[in-house]
Amino acid sequence: MNQDTICALATANGIGAIGIIRVSGNQSIEIVNKVFQGKNLEKADSHTVHYGFIVDDEIQDSRIEIRNSENFNQQPTLNNPIDEVMVSVFRAPKTFTTENSVEISFHGSPHIAKKILEVLIKNGARMAKAGEFTMRAFLNGRIDLSQAESIADLIASENEASRKVALNQLKGGITNEISILRGDLLNFTSLIELELDFAEEDVEFADRTALKTLLKKTEEKLRSLIDSFQYGNAIKNGVDVAIIGKPNAGKSTLLNALLKEERAIVSDIAGTTRDTIEEVLHIKGTAFRFIDTAGIRETTDLIEEIGVKKAKEKIESAKILLYLYDETDSTPQEVINFIKEFYREDLKIILLHNKIDLQNGYFENEFDNALKSALFPDYTTQIIGISAKNKTGIEALKSELSEYIQNLETQENTIITNQRHYEALQRSLESVKKVEDAISGNISTELLAYELRYALEYLGEISGEFTNDEVLGNIFSKFCIGK
Amino acid sequence: MNQDTICALATANGIGAIGIIRVSGNQSIEIVNKVFQGKNLEKADSHTVHYGFIVDDEIQDSRIEIRNSENFNQQPTLNNPIDEVMVSVFRAPKTFTTENSVEISFHGSPHIAKKILEVLIKNGARMAKAGEFTMRAFLNGRIDLSQAESIADLIASENEASRKVALNQLKGGITNEISILRGDLLNFTSLIELELDFAEEDVEFADRTALKTLLKKTEEKLRSLIDSFQYGNAIKNGVDVAIIGKPNAGKSTLLNALLKEERAIVSDIAGTTRDTIEEVLHIKGTAFRFIDTAGIRETTDLIEEIGVKKAKEKIESAKILLYLYDETDSTPQEVINFIKEFYREDLKIILLHNKIDLQNGYFENEFDNALKSALFPDYTTQIIGISAKNKTGIEALKSELSEYIQNLETQENTIITNQRHYEALQRSLESVKKVEDAISGNISTELLAYELRYALEYLGEISGEFTNDEVLGNIFSKFCIGK
Repeated sequence: MNQDTICALATANGIGAIGIIRVSGNQSIEIVNKVFQGKNLEKADSHTVHYGFIVDDEIQDSRIEIRNSENFNQQPTLNNPIDEVMVSVFRAPKTFTTENSVEISFHGSPHIAKKILEVLIKNGARMAKAGEFTMRAFLNGRIDLSQAESIADLIASENEASRKVALNQLKGGITNEISILRGDLLNFTSLIELELDFAEEDVEFADRTALKTLLKKTEEKLRSLIDSFQYGNAIKNGVDVAIIGKPNAGKSTLLNALLKEERAIVSDIAGTTRDTIEEVLHIKGTAFRFIDTAGIRETTDLIEEIGVKKAKEKIESAKILLYLYDETDSTPQEVINFIKEFYREDLKIILLHNKIDLQNGYFENEFDNALKSALFPDYTTQIIGISAKNKTGIEALKSELSEYIQNLETQENTIITNQRHYEALQRSLESVKKVEDAISGNISTELLAYELRYALEYLGEISGEFTNDEVLGNIFSKFCIGK
Repeated sequence: MNQDTICALATANGIGAIGIIRVSGNQSIEIVNKVFQGKNLEKADSHTVHYGFIVDDEIQDSRIEIRNSENFNQQPTLNNPIDEVMVSVFRAPKTFTTENSVEISFHGSPHIAKKILEVLIKNGARMAKAGEFTMRAFLNGRIDLSQAESIADLIASENEASRKVALNQLKGGITNEISILRGDLLNFTSLIELELDFAEEDVEFADRTALKTLLKKTEEKLRSLIDSFQYGNAIKNGVDVAIIGKPNAGKSTLLNALLKEERAIVSDIAGTTRDTIEEVLHIKGTAFRFIDTAGIRETTDLIEEIGVKKAKEKIESAKILLYLYDETDSTPQEVINFIKEFYREDLKIILLHNKIDLQNGYFENEFDNALKSALFPDYTTQIIGISAKNKTGIEALKSELSEYIQNLETQENTIITNQRHYEALQRSLESVKKVEDAISGNISTELLAYELRYALEYLGEISGEFTNDEVLGNIFSKFCIGK
């Protein structure tokens, strides 16, 4: 158990109307009370808020009870006041960290934050490390590791989908799934281990058929959770969409049409100095990041020029590729070569036949037919006729993007968004499969017990039941200070 | 009185561990309660904090009391929860605005802030305008206008001096000074106005000699407060220091020596595209802003070239001018011409004889003597020998800068930092002088009363006793949202 008292600024950096400094630890109320001119906090009830001043001098016997009176000016003279504050007192164990905690709400100047932190440290607190409040909540048993991680995800959530998944995780979504899986496996493991104790009597406490059924069920559940990661990852990190096209194919116009404002123009200028343009469009709560590969712009033959290497990297990390062409400035062979070069099974390719406004309405013409006969069905792709300029076909394109996400969606209530959980689930699945093989192969009870323990341990890593300092350090160091 | 309930994000923009949304107005507790799954806030005591969830659906009869239990996972299922929050309830009148108020502490994602604000607005609150919480505190009589202004100053305070002055102002520093001045003047004004009622009887209720003494005293106090503005302004806005010198005179090296880090190099690059370099050094709580006038760099004859116009503007707004010269690359006449061109009585000019390391120790040589005989004593200035490279003489320079501030300091406990207060005090002083003239000139009692009322009104502008919507709008629009 941590004995020291930690403090940190908990609100965002910068100037705000209010800033919050959070203090946690056995001594937190005592320490803040030393520098708080107002009510005696040691006598304050839990979950109460008190008006007063943080002062630079330690308060001895001259405590002044300051009330938040209607007549604000009836205030005593104070020695070295730092700021007028509101202080909230939270008493163990019903607090975020389960420790005594105090929150100081001050006028949100970074300078004042610094002064208050200095005075707290002078009186016995120390600066909290990144994520240390949440780590204490975990170490003190209030939340499990996946819930701790979900707090960082919640804070970082930029859209509805990621917020909901993180909140579900915080509310114990994964915890509950894992604990059901572990509970059942644990029963069998105990029985198997009991068999080991009675090894010489050759009894079978654990019904092997029932165990097989359970393992099958567990395997299915694990696969389902693992599969949800592709969706979870898209929700949490967004989906990269590479846009490819010749200089005048209309990429900026397309981006503008998608984003409905004139942002791409500004970005285009930036794009000449940066490597790529990134614009984000949220469709149904998922962030689609449009990446215009600048390297490809200056070339005429898309495949052969130098820029291709950079474009290739961008396309490799993309999940969706939009290939924009203008039939008056392109040949079907160019497009075909490009698609054949970059085709991957897990890359959704959408061909955008642009400038259909020039054709007086879109119809599949020879150009498109040439593409189709060369590419379909081996190189699964599709053609959408658009006019970026007239915003024709944009909704069809958005539907396609939206469908990409819908195809990822799962029946699972619990979505895996965390790489660490994903990997632990995969390891657990492998162990479960080994147990299944072991049973079928009539392997020794010892080995069976051994593999079952592994599967349990991998599952236990998610909730943090099995963990180590390195893993914890790695997780919490990515948190912000003050959380 | 405002009847509507306002809400806003009160913490700094951006991602933080915690964000705070502030709600104020008669309906604030009722509105938050509609979307809070936790304790029934309408039954909550003032100044208490409650754990629960903000949900998107209005809560009807299915209120669930959620306690911040030790076992975090014993939580009920909720419809559309937005975030896990802590809600503080403050009941009128002992609140910042004197109205019912609620503060919602949530996981500090801007997206979550937006969602919570949306749900509050859907349930009857509206977005607060900039400074509207503080404006309500003023309009509801909790603080006066100078105190309201001091809150913005506190939030913006970047150093000890500005924090202390702002806090003193918040605690009623100016309010008290002004109210003493007004109190005495008001007594006399009442007596004078009484004389008007008895005009036909030619009585004199107000002792003219005593009034003269009071006016003298008032005038002195006003002057003293007005004088403090130069210091107050330096504290609040910093002191501009223009650095002048030929390209190789060593300006960057001097800046580095002053700032003790290699920042000027970076800035120097920036300086080629921006107009000026600005670096800030805090000496005794005051910000000195060093402005390197880039326009002057490319010229050889400092006075005659085009860059001078720009440099002139910079020097005009500066309070201190550092003129850096290298005697091997300069002539005394050049320096003399420059000083004569730019000399002002309120500009502190410091000549820096740089590169004294090349001389094997500093001594006043012919160059310096030439400057002295040409400039002293008419053009008050001084020479400091420095070696920017070896950091010799830097402390002497810092002392000079520090002395500039010390010379501004006043005996006043109350420092005027606000341009609006400064102007009101000046107008008030003019009126007081007019009253003095009037008495000496045996002017009519009517006119005397009239001028006294003016003096009182100008003083009353500071505390906001006399004000109008335009003035208020102007003051509070400069506040941040959420304050």
